[in-house]
Amino acid sequence: MCTHKTPRVVAARRLTTRSGRTESGRFLAEGAQAVREALRHGRVHELFVTEPATRRHGELVREADAIGARVSAIDARAAELLSETVTPQGIAAVCDTVEVPLAEALAGAPRLVAVLVGVADPGNAGTVLRVADAAGADAVLFAGDSVDVHNGKCVRASTGSLFHLPVARGREVEDVLTACSAAGLRLLAADGHAEHALEDGLAGHGGLASPSAWLLGNEAHGLPAEVLARADHTVRVPIYGRAESLNLATAAAVCLYASAMAGAGAARRG
Amino acid sequence: MCTHKTPRVVAARRLTTRSGRTESGRFLAEGAQAVREALRHGRVHELFVTEPATRRHGELVREADAIGARVSAIDARAAELLSETVTPQGIAAVCDTVEVPLAEALAGAPRLVAVLVGVADPGNAGTVLRVADAAGADAVLFAGDSVDVHNGKCVRASTGSLFHLPVARGREVEDVLTACSAAGLRLLAADGHAEHALEDGLAGHGGLASPSAWLLGNEAHGLPAEVLARADHTVRVPIYGRAESLNLATAAAVCLYASAMAGAGAARRG
Repeated sequence: MCTHKTPRVVAARRLTTRSGRTESGRFLAEGAQAVREALRHGRVHELFVTEPATRRHGELVREADAIGARVSAIDARAAELLSETVTPQGIAAVCDTVEVPLAEALAGAPRLVAVLVGVADPGNAGTVLRVADAAGADAVLFAGDSVDVHNGKCVRASTGSLFHLPVARGREVEDVLTACSAAGLRLLAADGHAEHALEDGLAGHGGLASPSAWLLGNEAHGLPAEVLARADHTVRVPIYGRAESLNLATAAAVCLYASAMAGAGAARRG
Repeated sequence: MCTHKTPRVVAARRLTTRSGRTESGRFLAEGAQAVREALRHGRVHELFVTEPATRRHGELVREADAIGARVSAIDARAAELLSETVTPQGIAAVCDTVEVPLAEALAGAPRLVAVLVGVADPGNAGTVLRVADAAGADAVLFAGDSVDVHNGKCVRASTGSLFHLPVARGREVEDVLTACSAAGLRLLAADGHAEHALEDGLAGHGGLASPSAWLLGNEAHGLPAEVLARADHTVRVPIYGRAESLNLATAAAVCLYASAMAGAGAARRG
């Protein structure tokens, strides 16, 4: 069976929209890497795969089959319908969405959390997710009107990290910040005009190794004034040269790793 | 005069190709931000601008006029011809290319240099350039078959940083490494399987504040074995979570800032 607009493909295509994902509680993980991580760490219901992709990624098809997921053969045109990339890889998995309740994401004495506040670009959000994962963060929280973590571009940019650590969403930024504080996390707002320079390591304020939630703002506008006012400390990544700023993902990398490396150092020393 | 395929536009369009840039020694800085930085820090010969862009960015047109650059009115179709983006901003400047000889880029006792070895993606290269600028690097070197720094995507991702610090190119990677060593820089190869973890700060090996050239490899393949063997030290960004790796720009951010912040700390303490 290999025609492109089967009812199953049409239903799966709805998962490329946010409303389709919200209604069904499922999303599409597209491409071999995302599918591999979904099979390993997520919950896969169905695998769509073209003939060439079956030859290239036979192990993924066998794995999907072994866990009882439905495997549906599709043609190149159907692969295009299910893809948000210019050159579809011909393999996509229907998975349960990954978000958990805020309280669950923050359970168990977290030490490092990233909070995206109104981050609009899915590629940026996915890259921050990947960096947070690499830095050993305990959770990533999407606050306010941040992009959907299940957006295809975000899934791809995260290279599987959305399956690796708890992800939660809070429409009200204030609720997210309150939950972080209640979980014992200091609120550190990353901001270009902050009181503390990152290189000073928050000396005299508990240091960088103390449990922290890094608040990261929108690409163009940064963090809103009320969030800056609400933070325990505002911290700037120092600019030593003539660049005006860093982009969101690189700023997040520097902040999260500064905490992670200080924490790891503290753990080794302790 | 506002037809789209004037000889001037046709000539400028050639600068969107590498061969066109190499022949003329000029390139196109596209978009208001790139044009602003070019006017401030580069050498601009001609400004192409649509009527709507003239209204939005009158100060740039006046600035170009004041330095004696030719200002050429174009229509929307010409703006498309000169643009490599989906939605052209209608403003682009013809500038002198920015590369300087390797010896010039490394003159004056540099303390921090980024070396891109075979980096293929122009967006990544531009983002690393921006990060290197922000971290106060003294130069960025493009080694081997790395992308052209004047590629439109690289120019945009650099957000003007290509005008802020010396950029040089060396076709032979070995020549670039030799020049760095001769300039007193340790060669630090960023690699996932390295001997040293970044968090250990190269303690016992001069520390992170010592003058260093960070060698950054291709997005997919990393650094070639001969470059790893050639480095003074190989250093890995530790992965604390379950991500397989960091992407090039975020890894570069963590490495360059680790050196920069150690150096700044040393400077403050010294």
